[in-house]
Amino acid sequence: MQIGMIGLGKMGMNMAQRLIKGGHSVIGNATKETTIREAEALGVKGARSLQELTANLAQPRVVWLMVPAGAVTEEVLGSLTPLLEMGDIVVDGGNSNYKDTTRRGQVLMEKGLRFVDVGTSGGIWGLTEGYSLMIGGDPATVEYLRPIFETLAPAPDQGWGRVGPSGAGHFTKMVHNGIEYGMMQAFAEGFEILKEKREFELDLHRVSQIWQRGSVIRSWLLELIENVMAEDSSLEDVEAYVADSGEGRWTVFEAIDLNVAAPVITASLQRRIRSRQDGPYSDKLVAAMRHQFGGHEIKKKEG
Amino acid sequence: MQIGMIGLGKMGMNMAQRLIKGGHSVIGNATKETTIREAEALGVKGARSLQELTANLAQPRVVWLMVPAGAVTEEVLGSLTPLLEMGDIVVDGGNSNYKDTTRRGQVLMEKGLRFVDVGTSGGIWGLTEGYSLMIGGDPATVEYLRPIFETLAPAPDQGWGRVGPSGAGHFTKMVHNGIEYGMMQAFAEGFEILKEKREFELDLHRVSQIWQRGSVIRSWLLELIENVMAEDSSLEDVEAYVADSGEGRWTVFEAIDLNVAAPVITASLQRRIRSRQDGPYSDKLVAAMRHQFGGHEIKKKEG
Repeated sequence: MQIGMIGLGKMGMNMAQRLIKGGHSVIGNATKETTIREAEALGVKGARSLQELTANLAQPRVVWLMVPAGAVTEEVLGSLTPLLEMGDIVVDGGNSNYKDTTRRGQVLMEKGLRFVDVGTSGGIWGLTEGYSLMIGGDPATVEYLRPIFETLAPAPDQGWGRVGPSGAGHFTKMVHNGIEYGMMQAFAEGFEILKEKREFELDLHRVSQIWQRGSVIRSWLLELIENVMAEDSSLEDVEAYVADSGEGRWTVFEAIDLNVAAPVITASLQRRIRSRQDGPYSDKLVAAMRHQFGGHEIKKKEG
Repeated sequence: MQIGMIGLGKMGMNMAQRLIKGGHSVIGNATKETTIREAEALGVKGARSLQELTANLAQPRVVWLMVPAGAVTEEVLGSLTPLLEMGDIVVDGGNSNYKDTTRRGQVLMEKGLRFVDVGTSGGIWGLTEGYSLMIGGDPATVEYLRPIFETLAPAPDQGWGRVGPSGAGHFTKMVHNGIEYGMMQAFAEGFEILKEKREFELDLHRVSQIWQRGSVIRSWLLELIENVMAEDSSLEDVEAYVADSGEGRWTVFEAIDLNVAAPVITASLQRRIRSRQDGPYSDKLVAAMRHQFGGHEIKKKEG
């Protein structure tokens, strides 16, 4: 198939490569000229503008957006849609909030365009292992895009599927990431306990290897931990600072809206927030209260 | 090798089978005659008493305990050790608290016996897939038992290893289970959010299949979830009641003793405790307080 790819970052570039390797023809657009050149070296036909991109695509056009969620996606869609014609298909493969997706799907439909949301998991390993694709949109359009999904997925008949109407793909990806937060935090806490049990001098790399074969917690995340531990289990060079990119907090909001108690996903998000705080006010206040009622010593900041 | 197996429950029976299939000779003891007969049908040489078991083992004897942790393990060890001789080896393959293990290792060592602790993961699937074995004890004894570990593990060179001195095996298994609690709860919360998002009518079985290929959260637990969802994703026939067997709570105690903040493992244990409570007092008290200060309605129990 012929596909236009807007956004050639870590994810978009790898996906373009996987598509080309699968026999598809990819026309790619990015903001930086160097990025477009890099893509061209990999077999992508570079497009220096959205006009050039859409002019080079046969109808019905298929344009895959792989750009940051939020303002950037909104802007690109705003510039792109006037260049499209009845029946053209826009795919949002990024981590958009499903509520934005549902709204955008409605707007595009009213313009006679088709909109498909694809929650994409697999990270930088997707290039070789394939991506897990959670797809929302009308069944006929999803079916039309089948050759693309079959190439991007780990196997033609596995790891991809339509999960529901417009927005359902991004919703499912959002929850996927919420679960991911909880799993990562569970592993992290466990390994910290192992590490702090000094008298056993546990070899964390060895433990991760043993767990990876036959244990209940064997998983792809544990495989990544095995890599980390093989390199340097002390993590001395790693800052204890964890970013979050939206899906975790949206999952927590959603759990509240749906009246679902989700203590573990919530706690893992909160741990990430705490990891970015330097001397949070609440810890200071608890220390100050202990001092007030019990005369407990306060650690004074060195001036 | 020749090995005595005490305890032929779900785990012990499967392990005996796997050992026999691997060319070892197993003498088995259990409390029930029917269990011993079942084991005999599988090739185990049945022993009706610990005396019979030890009398039939060549020196140095290797006796593997696969009995419930706590009082039962303590009792069996009490009856067994007087029947053993200098250099004999006792393996505790159960889920004993590592503090008991360290103490028992000391007591047995003083009697000239050798004690090895093996944290065993793999559940009922271990029979076919092999067990993940986390081993504590002195290096020479662990090395002596190598043929047994090579057979029980998923592969001779994978999924098993000595992680440290006496107690380290059970400690590592304890933390493994703590992580398992967190992972299970993270998955459970995510799937509840998916289920409660009624308007998308998500097919939970399909979602679990998609996630299992290429996604970041692919794991053996997700494989089990796939089985559950294939059968009946409504879970209407399942009681919302979750047991815990010790390791989770010990992990939380240990985290506190080591000054490790472990909110996710702690929250998953607390969710299990909550799942077993019928109308907990604290929920009643919060409702009563809301009534006191705001006149908010209380749901009266129907009398």
